[in-house]
Amino acid sequence: MRLVRYRFADRIAHGVLEDGVIRALRGTFFEDPLPSGEVVPLDDVRLLAPVLPSKVIGVGKNFPAHAAEFGSEVPEEPLLFFKPSTAVSGPGDPIPLPPISRRVDYEGELAVVIGRVARNVRAEDAFRSILGYTCGNDVTLRDLQKKDGQWARAKGFDGSCPLGPWIETELDPTDVRIETRVNGETRQFASTRDLVFGVATLVEFISAFTTLLPGDVILTGTPEGVGPLAPGDRVEVEVEGIGVLANPVEAR
Amino acid sequence: MRLVRYRFADRIAHGVLEDGVIRALRGTFFEDPLPSGEVVPLDDVRLLAPVLPSKVIGVGKNFPAHAAEFGSEVPEEPLLFFKPSTAVSGPGDPIPLPPISRRVDYEGELAVVIGRVARNVRAEDAFRSILGYTCGNDVTLRDLQKKDGQWARAKGFDGSCPLGPWIETELDPTDVRIETRVNGETRQFASTRDLVFGVATLVEFISAFTTLLPGDVILTGTPEGVGPLAPGDRVEVEVEGIGVLANPVEAR
Repeated sequence: MRLVRYRFADRIAHGVLEDGVIRALRGTFFEDPLPSGEVVPLDDVRLLAPVLPSKVIGVGKNFPAHAAEFGSEVPEEPLLFFKPSTAVSGPGDPIPLPPISRRVDYEGELAVVIGRVARNVRAEDAFRSILGYTCGNDVTLRDLQKKDGQWARAKGFDGSCPLGPWIETELDPTDVRIETRVNGETRQFASTRDLVFGVATLVEFISAFTTLLPGDVILTGTPEGVGPLAPGDRVEVEVEGIGVLANPVEAR
Repeated sequence: MRLVRYRFADRIAHGVLEDGVIRALRGTFFEDPLPSGEVVPLDDVRLLAPVLPSKVIGVGKNFPAHAAEFGSEVPEEPLLFFKPSTAVSGPGDPIPLPPISRRVDYEGELAVVIGRVARNVRAEDAFRSILGYTCGNDVTLRDLQKKDGQWARAKGFDGSCPLGPWIETELDPTDVRIETRVNGETRQFASTRDLVFGVATLVEFISAFTTLLPGDVILTGTPEGVGPLAPGDRVEVEVEGIGVLANPVEAR
């Protein structure tokens, strides 16, 4: 099932997408929602970030080949950081190039959307806490990531977390392709089977110290091939079985 | 003015505290609230964290003597990290000792509460974005802070951000004493005049990359004298002109 959040006729609504048609829901995805009866063609709406997370948890160096491109080993335990709710943007939203940075990188990723309150969840039960999956871009100010040490500015700035285009609830995330394209050219290409820490392990590790709330997002880590964005670029993050998250890069 | 958030008769409400009496408000502090007419003695309510921030931004090494106790220089720019909303607790709430850590430290701090949406605010205008001030404890898993590198787990775990007891709206934060006591014994004692980056500078620096929302909190940094907590301890963070935030440390 594909779950969308969208704007139509000046209202924000949630719905189920099938064959190019959205069936609207009453309420959000987290309350056993019922159909509202409204049916809208996908082409008539503006898709928004499919969730508004209370927090986004990112995972650093979770693909060995990406860790290697920075001269790093993979960490012994998941290397985590937070992106705040204000970092989130949706499909088609411009990725800003903040004046505080000279190098803004794309990082295409599989994003996990939490479906119910999760605290001390074991890996074998993790999938019960998950609503579904979407595409994410962990946009990073590479120069400030190095300079600051802590990654709050580099990975937490407004617009640093495009998510979308929808939540796919029926994905098996253990071996799906992630592909990132800039202006149509492939820059990242890998499978989630190469993740050092897989989805279930991440849910266990993270929920051991912080309560995950419905709508919270885990960005599972980016493959090798990260690189800078320039004004006017168009970035696409495609995850097999989900779809394509496309964002223009803001012109200065 | 002292603003409180509290539980009374199974309801959560906001109010103004004066002479031991709370005058309840309709709504929250951020919507020009009107008195509801309800008046309750302070002794009859349970005080809660005075705000539910969408994010908490912490500042590392912002007192020279504290940076020195870790053998560090003060940073050239504010060193920032995020604590998620799930980290927040209130006055009297137990500070947990998570089993993942062997050393849990108190860090008493002045906390700034944002009053209105703030983006690209200049230092000279910063006080217009501030609702007031409260006491904060930036509880830290010292062993994991070192081990992990990124501080998400060490400073973002559930219960790592006690706030309270109330918001004082009329404080001049430029020279107030911060004192942290454990079981009545003073462990930290300093004035905010020794902050490397003061409140106005922090609002400017932070709002240059992330939008601050009403209720968001900036923890301005801890003085020297940090140290470990043991089961059954009682920690008090007192900020001059505000009051005392007291929390027991959970017994194992």
